[in-house]
Amino acid sequence: MSLFKVVSSKLAAEIDQELMGPQVGFTLQQLMELAGFSVAQAVCREFPLDKANINKHIFVIAGPGNNGGDGLVCARHLKLFGYNPIVYYPKRSEKNEFYKQLVNQLGFFKVPVLSQDAANTDWIEYLQPEKTLCIVDAIFGFSFKQPLRDPFKGILQQLHELENKVPIVSVDVPSGWDVDEGPTTENCINPSVLVSLTVPKPCSNFLKQGSSHYVGGRFIPREFANKYGFDPFNYQSTDQILKL
Amino acid sequence: MSLFKVVSSKLAAEIDQELMGPQVGFTLQQLMELAGFSVAQAVCREFPLDKANINKHIFVIAGPGNNGGDGLVCARHLKLFGYNPIVYYPKRSEKNEFYKQLVNQLGFFKVPVLSQDAANTDWIEYLQPEKTLCIVDAIFGFSFKQPLRDPFKGILQQLHELENKVPIVSVDVPSGWDVDEGPTTENCINPSVLVSLTVPKPCSNFLKQGSSHYVGGRFIPREFANKYGFDPFNYQSTDQILKL
Repeated sequence: MSLFKVVSSKLAAEIDQELMGPQVGFTLQQLMELAGFSVAQAVCREFPLDKANINKHIFVIAGPGNNGGDGLVCARHLKLFGYNPIVYYPKRSEKNEFYKQLVNQLGFFKVPVLSQDAANTDWIEYLQPEKTLCIVDAIFGFSFKQPLRDPFKGILQQLHELENKVPIVSVDVPSGWDVDEGPTTENCINPSVLVSLTVPKPCSNFLKQGSSHYVGGRFIPREFANKYGFDPFNYQSTDQILKL
Repeated sequence: MSLFKVVSSKLAAEIDQELMGPQVGFTLQQLMELAGFSVAQAVCREFPLDKANINKHIFVIAGPGNNGGDGLVCARHLKLFGYNPIVYYPKRSEKNEFYKQLVNQLGFFKVPVLSQDAANTDWIEYLQPEKTLCIVDAIFGFSFKQPLRDPFKGILQQLHELENKVPIVSVDVPSGWDVDEGPTTENCINPSVLVSLTVPKPCSNFLKQGSSHYVGGRFIPREFANKYGFDPFNYQSTDQILKL
């Protein structure tokens, strides 16, 4: 697989900070809406709705931070596109009111959000391969640092065991991977689809053969990209994703 | 032109209030991002970028309220799609910090925002028909009430005089029209394109022959639409607009 221009976890954090800083003035809510939408568009491109899959579920697992928020937004758009998402959001941020609102919005769209009880293992019952179109891994993003802890350690172990039966779509970074170094153990998940946000991170070079790699999160101008050492991506028309 | 299901200005206000109320929990920032994106997508559908028009401008006029905010978001997405928007935003809300951020974001994208001096008539200099692909009228939305006051009275008079030379794309409601009754004077603008948000308002039945009517703002589930007496629109794939 060819190599694409990437930015390190450190630069990705700087980009994020500058986008939401006083000069540019993007809000988290805006960027999350666009990022989540772009992931949903990538899912739609990879797994188009048809008669054979219209009754299947998309299983979205949301982590405690912004990556999880992208997943919550993605699930809402998937529902609007005609899919049947189910959300598992085991560890919820109590600090940020906006995350609660994202969960409320899912309720408004009648998207099931499983109980947040981390000791609960019922979630895996909902993840039956023959009934699941794909898994959206929105657990950790570019600010993830080792070590992996429960409940996500256990969840990712189970996803790894399922990954040959149900394709995994990872948001920005395959969860559990080192952002810069890639997979760190043999038990890491191997996503079939990666949607890098803004610009790929170094770990994207370790995607397995035959996987699909998209860039999404279309919200920066050329000069800004160049300043961080990459070229803007050649998105087509109004697309919010580009297949690399 | 055929009639579509519409909701009155009163119902439109109720829908808006419920979407942003405690139960549903959408934020203004989310809805504005999606609404502005959908208007930009409609512009792109109606006026595809090609060699002949790539250097033309799109002149976005933003009003003081939420319709104007949709216009500011739209301008940013148009820039990302490769167009050259120019924004005229003569009467700015000082109350809401978010509107200032939307203007900052336009600065980040190097989208010109003309001086806000309402007595300034220079703005019309930027609106040369041979150099302008279209005008985006984001002045007033469904909460507009007569009478029309300056500077917008004068601006709309000038747009009316130009409308046979430069097509007008109105956001949600053609500015100056009564939301329920349609055009009230002979001097009203006649847009070539209307992008109704969420659901058309009664005035959309008075669009001139041959105009294009889109619905955008794809953010409500079926049950919610039905509760307000209309059917959800049959958006295709990940489209944020549907041509009616």
